[in-house]
Amino acid sequence: MADTAAPKRILIVSAHPEPRSLTAALAAHAARELRAAGHEVRTSDLYAMKWKAGVDADDFPGLGPERRLDVLADSGAATLAGRLSPDIAAEQEKVRWADAVILQFPMWWFSVPAILKGWIDRVFTFEFAHGPSVPPPYSEGALAGRRALLAVTVGARESAFSDRGVHGPLADVLHPLQHGLFWFTGMAPLEPFAVYGSVDVAEERFAAVREAYGRRLGGLFTEAPVPFRSLTGGDYDHGMRLLPGVEPAGTSGLQLHVRPRP
Amino acid sequence: MADTAAPKRILIVSAHPEPRSLTAALAAHAARELRAAGHEVRTSDLYAMKWKAGVDADDFPGLGPERRLDVLADSGAATLAGRLSPDIAAEQEKVRWADAVILQFPMWWFSVPAILKGWIDRVFTFEFAHGPSVPPPYSEGALAGRRALLAVTVGARESAFSDRGVHGPLADVLHPLQHGLFWFTGMAPLEPFAVYGSVDVAEERFAAVREAYGRRLGGLFTEAPVPFRSLTGGDYDHGMRLLPGVEPAGTSGLQLHVRPRP
Repeated sequence: MADTAAPKRILIVSAHPEPRSLTAALAAHAARELRAAGHEVRTSDLYAMKWKAGVDADDFPGLGPERRLDVLADSGAATLAGRLSPDIAAEQEKVRWADAVILQFPMWWFSVPAILKGWIDRVFTFEFAHGPSVPPPYSEGALAGRRALLAVTVGARESAFSDRGVHGPLADVLHPLQHGLFWFTGMAPLEPFAVYGSVDVAEERFAAVREAYGRRLGGLFTEAPVPFRSLTGGDYDHGMRLLPGVEPAGTSGLQLHVRPRP
Repeated sequence: MADTAAPKRILIVSAHPEPRSLTAALAAHAARELRAAGHEVRTSDLYAMKWKAGVDADDFPGLGPERRLDVLADSGAATLAGRLSPDIAAEQEKVRWADAVILQFPMWWFSVPAILKGWIDRVFTFEFAHGPSVPPPYSEGALAGRRALLAVTVGARESAFSDRGVHGPLADVLHPLQHGLFWFTGMAPLEPFAVYGSVDVAEERFAAVREAYGRRLGGLFTEAPVPFRSLTGGDYDHGMRLLPGVEPAGTSGLQLHVRPRP
């Protein structure tokens, strides 16, 4: 991996219970490569941290015991008052610090493992990731200026996640993360890095996977992100619906929200 | 709700930390309505159960402490040997018992709350939900014969989840659950029941919501499920890709996998 650009800060969040897993090996590889290129890297190994997955009243210390928990309002109030539970505050500080966030995970049931969903649910609080106190969602959102990469291992073969594959195109399956989490909060998502057929990756293939991953990491700050449309760029009406005729003929579904590529 | 059909068994799984939440109220309403119609209902209130979200080695008791955890293989072996952790085994028994499964949850970051993702990750083990010991995935899968309903509360307004809405069509956003979880395991998913603008539902509107939900529950065993395509029905090639020309002109993305409706 060659990178002559200025050093950047990268947060790698990984989610696998086995320290000798492919996920752990890829997360370690990414950290090594990025550091070798002169970048600063911090990591959140969620299982090693025994990350708590479920949002609950303990996330917002100081609420009265008899108070009805209102997740949105209470998370926003605790964010603004600086009284989120310390584990959440620490992760928010890492996200704020980062120029890029990498989520390294195995695809379980067509999404992230629960512990990683819990990192998303708990860290991306109201008034931190979205809300009236931060810029409006999409493109110029609260976390704008950051890049984001999903690095996912997938048991199935690639054809099943192709444009006509039975599992759906990978971009569509990951849309809730790419567009719903990253783009919504203003982060610029790159195309995901996917390792298919990940149930059994022998040493020879692993070398090729590491090399391919290294190439993607080398482009972390230069690759063109997925060109999702801006909510404020004139493409949407006041009901947040894409205006008629904006998209190329034949486009439908989630791909409506991606600008045509040159 | 009128239902003159034979009594059925329904499992309601709900996921909200606040017992006085809209989610809890809707789950209780569903249980009451279904029981009033003569059905048997069991519930899994995940926060009340303190459901553990993260898959780890404790899920598969009896593995040596130094053994490298292989989630897929170890979960399959533990399932076949009947030595899954008791909390998982109890939920599998409920799913097997049920004629229909309802997931009642707030949409958090365009998906289920982490605790519910953890129910999915941990309960739908290899060799229970899919694998060589059970029928092949989709349509005739391991849990065929069951119906499934997502009952979701959504903070955003409906237009943002419409066909051209910025968040994506609700069906596409929920595809990982509707097609990836339910249909993959053989369950027949109904159209989701969604309550939009759920941040603040006043009493008058709540009465209308209850009534609308009651109508959907009344059709739980009679409504036509989403007509996803069968993997073995001749529509897909050996790479699990939809054959060319099978879909109506202009269809693309995830909707390729839904048969045209009359």
